[in-house]
Amino acid sequence: MEEWVADALRSARVARLGTADADGAVRLVPVCFALVDAWLVSAVDHKPKRTGQLRRLDDMRASGSATVLIDQYDEDWSQLWWIRVRGSAEVLTAGVERDTALDALVAKYAQYRERPPAGAVYRIAMDEVRSWRATPEPAR
Amino acid sequence: MEEWVADALRSARVARLGTADADGAVRLVPVCFALVDAWLVSAVDHKPKRTGQLRRLDDMRASGSATVLIDQYDEDWSQLWWIRVRGSAEVLTAGVERDTALDALVAKYAQYRERPPAGAVYRIAMDEVRSWRATPEPAR
Repeated sequence: MEEWVADALRSARVARLGTADADGAVRLVPVCFALVDAWLVSAVDHKPKRTGQLRRLDDMRASGSATVLIDQYDEDWSQLWWIRVRGSAEVLTAGVERDTALDALVAKYAQYRERPPAGAVYRIAMDEVRSWRATPEPAR
Repeated sequence: MEEWVADALRSARVARLGTADADGAVRLVPVCFALVDAWLVSAVDHKPKRTGQLRRLDDMRASGSATVLIDQYDEDWSQLWWIRVRGSAEVLTAGVERDTALDALVAKYAQYRERPPAGAVYRIAMDEVRSWRATPEPAR
């Protein structure tokens, strides 16, 4: 993985999660996330529970996979970049993996320190990482 | 459609497009878009052609549908909102509908005035619009 990709995955504050239901209809939702080893971890937090938040879990349980997009928009289009992660997805209902994921989320987001996510926790393996940037990274 | 949703759809500068391939794998990409009647229109622009940019067209041709997410991230989570549009998707290869879509994109983005998109143009019907905001809109 290129260094700018690793940096952006660590520092990005928001990502967009894409899942597909059994009919192939795509569901998209913005998510907060953190990295744990080779996984992106995320949680259903305290925002009012809508069926859409739970359906993303159903999608992941049924399909076993998800896609996550991290990108930067800027009016200077030479500054655009995106990173797309695809991989197996798993809902973590209990145990050390769930605790580790929650710890990583709380460590990254001060907002979670006041109110840790109470809902389901899930993780997506970084099985496939594709990236694009409008301007090649300068040589170091 | 609530007024804040209509306003946000008009003014948002970037959206994330989700399509699914025949295996149900989700593809996500950030896109610029404009509104034409009850459609979101977008185009493949001058950014270096990657297969991923063309595959999104294949996905739409094959599935006939797409999902678009427009959202706002803010460190003050009371300011979060998202809008999700799902509907039939269509690649516009020629004709007045393609011209109208291109005109709307060029009118919205100064960046396109210097260099109009040269690639494929497509549109997604706003068949289903769901929205969420962390803080209810104040009464007017």
